Amino acid sequence: MTNDRYLRALRREPVDCTPVWIMRQAGRYLPEYRATRARAGSFLALAKTPELACEVTLQPLERFDLDAAILFSDILTVPDAMGLGLYFVDGEGPKFERPIRSAADVAKLAVPDIGTELRYVTDAVSLIRRELAGRVPLIGFSGSPWTLACYMVEGGGSDNFVRIKAMMFNEPETLHRLLEVVTDAVIAYLAAQREAGAQALQVFDTWGGVLSPAAYREFSLRYLERIARELPRGEGAERTPLVLFGKGNAAHLEALADTGAEGIGVDWLVTLEDARRRIGGKVALQGNLDPATLFASPERIRDEVRATLESYGSGPGHVFNLGHGVTPDVKPEHMKVLVDAVHEFSRVK
Amino acid sequence: MTNDRYLRALRREPVDCTPVWIMRQAGRYLPEYRATRARAGSFLALAKTPELACEVTLQPLERFDLDAAILFSDILTVPDAMGLGLYFVDGEGPKFERPIRSAADVAKLAVPDIGTELRYVTDAVSLIRRELAGRVPLIGFSGSPWTLACYMVEGGGSDNFVRIKAMMFNEPETLHRLLEVVTDAVIAYLAAQREAGAQALQVFDTWGGVLSPAAYREFSLRYLERIARELPRGEGAERTPLVLFGKGNAAHLEALADTGAEGIGVDWLVTLEDARRRIGGKVALQGNLDPATLFASPERIRDEVRATLESYGSGPGHVFNLGHGVTPDVKPEHMKVLVDAVHEFSRVK
Repeated sequence: MTNDRYLRALRREPVDCTPVWIMRQAGRYLPEYRATRARAGSFLALAKTPELACEVTLQPLERFDLDAAILFSDILTVPDAMGLGLYFVDGEGPKFERPIRSAADVAKLAVPDIGTELRYVTDAVSLIRRELAGRVPLIGFSGSPWTLACYMVEGGGSDNFVRIKAMMFNEPETLHRLLEVVTDAVIAYLAAQREAGAQALQVFDTWGGVLSPAAYREFSLRYLERIARELPRGEGAERTPLVLFGKGNAAHLEALADTGAEGIGVDWLVTLEDARRRIGGKVALQGNLDPATLFASPERIRDEVRATLESYGSGPGHVFNLGHGVTPDVKPEHMKVLVDAVHEFSRVK
Repeated sequence: MTNDRYLRALRREPVDCTPVWIMRQAGRYLPEYRATRARAGSFLALAKTPELACEVTLQPLERFDLDAAILFSDILTVPDAMGLGLYFVDGEGPKFERPIRSAADVAKLAVPDIGTELRYVTDAVSLIRRELAGRVPLIGFSGSPWTLACYMVEGGGSDNFVRIKAMMFNEPETLHRLLEVVTDAVIAYLAAQREAGAQALQVFDTWGGVLSPAAYREFSLRYLERIARELPRGEGAERTPLVLFGKGNAAHLEALADTGAEGIGVDWLVTLEDARRRIGGKVALQGNLDPATLFASPERIRDEVRATLESYGSGPGHVFNLGHGVTPDVKPEHMKVLVDAVHEFSRVK
C-alpha cells in the first residue's frame, strides 16, 4: 500500500505524520457529491448503486490529502435489508415504513442474507478497493446495535427516544432479543465487508450517549463487546482493525478500551489528553475536533488542529478526525486547510 | 412555611424525606394546562399574563405532592425584552425576528429595564407567592448566558450551533461582549425575581453540553461563575439558594461546585453517586432520573426512583428531579407514582 499511516496508527506503530480522515468526508459539502447525487436521483439510489457509491467515495481523495477512504453508504442499510422499508423524506431524515413496536415484530426479524440483500454494499466495497489501487486503506462500517435499534423502534430520528426507552423499561427482554438479532446482522455485515476488501471497520454508536450509565452498559456496550469479541478479523499485522466510535461516549472510555477493539473514536466533549490517560495506551484514539471548527477562519482552523494534536501528545496511536461528521455548509477549502495542517504540524522531523 | 424540605435540602440540612419537584412540571402533559393554554390563545400570551402564569404554576401542586413550585415562564423572555422579538411557530419551537449576527448587533444591546419590560414576570412571581400562601417555596429561573446567546445568535433552536460557534472561533471578543451584557441582564432579572418573592433561583444551561471542555470553561462556565458571585441573595439561613442546572454538564461538576452556587442540577448521564463523590459535599445535588422513565410502568418507575435515591445515598443535600424537563406525552398518573415514590422510599423512619 502506498500510504498505510492510518493502519499503522491503529496498530500503534510509528508514523511519519498523524493520519487523518473525516467522518462524512464524502458528502453534501462537496459540489461534485451534489452533482452525482442529483444524477442518481435520490440518496438511496446513490447508496445502492455500486458505481455511484464508488464515485462519491473517491471524490474527497481527489481534493484532499486524506489517509483513508470510507465506503459511502448509510448506517440504516441493515434494518432496510431486514425488511423495515427505509425511505427518506427531504429535510426530515431517514424513516422506516415498518418500524418495530412489539415482541411479535421482533420475533419476525432475521439476519438478512448479506450476499443477496446487501450485495450492493459488498460490490461497492470491491469496486472501491479496485479503484483505490492501494493508495490508501478503505474503511467499512456499520451502525451499532443500539443505534440501529433506536431507528428501528422510533421509526426514524427522535428527540427523546421515548419509544425505545419505553421498551427498555417495560420489555427489556424484547429489546435484548432485538439487539441480539441486530448484533448478529452487524457482525455478518462487517465480516462481509472485510471479505469484500474493507481494510478497517468502524461501528458508529451515534445514540449511545442518550443512555444513563447503567442503561449504556446493558443496552449499548454489551453489544459492542460482542462485536469486538466475535467479529473475525485475522491476527497480527494482518488483523483488520475495528474502531468503535460513539457520540457522547466520554463517560465509558475505560470500558470501551477493554472490549478488544483496536481503536476508540471520541467526540469533542473530552480532551484527547484525558481520553488517552484514561485508556492507558491500550487502544488507538480517533478524533476529535468539533465539526463546527470548519466554520472558523483558516488561521483559526490551524490553531485548533495544532491544539488537538498537542492534546494527544507525542507517541503513536492517534488518527485525526472530527468528533462527528462534517456538516453540509462547510467550505471545501476549509477542509483542505484542516487536512494539510494535520500533516504539517505532526510531521516527524 | 408549611413545607420547607426543598430549601433545607439545598442548605444540606436534615429533612424528613427527600424533596422533589420536576422540571417543566407545569406543562403540556397536564390537561388542565392545555385548557388554560387554549384560553390564553398562545404560549406567549400565557407566559405574559401574570394571572394565567400563576394559574398554570399552581396546577401541578393540586395533583401531586410536590415540594416546590416553579414560576411558569420561558427562558427567552430576557432576549425578548432586549428587543429580539420572540415568537413561536407551532411544532418548530421558539424563534427571534431579529437575531444577533454581528458586532454591530451586539453593540446595540443593553440590559432591559426589568421593572417595565419584564414586569409581567415579577408580577407573576408576586402573585404566585401570594397564592401559594407558604405551602411550598417558589423557584424563579433564567436561562444561562451561553444558552440564551445560542438562541440569540442562531435565531432559534439548532442542531449544530454553527452560527454561534463560528462567532466563537472567529470573533470571540464579540461573543464575550454579548455574553457580558446577557449576564448583566440575567443577574438583574434573577435579582428582580428574588425581590418579587422567589425563594430559590435556578439557571438553565441547556446548551453548555455542546461545547468542548476548553470552550465550556471560556464561554459557559465563566458566566455562570459571574452569576454565582455577583447575584445578591442574602446570607446565612435567609440566603436564597442558586441552583445551576446543565444538560451534559457531567464533565464539569468539580468546577461547577466551586462557583459558589448552592446546588448543581445534573442530567441522567452521570450517577448521583459519582457526582456526589466528585463534588465532595460542597453543594447540594439535584436530579436525575431519565425523563423517559415516566413512560415505564408504575412498578418500574418506583424501581428507578429507588435506585436513584440509593445512588445518592444517605445524608442531606439531595433534591429529586428528572435529568431534564418532563415530555408532553407523559401520563399524569405516572408523575404521581414518581412523586409519591420519592417520599415513600426516602422517608426517615
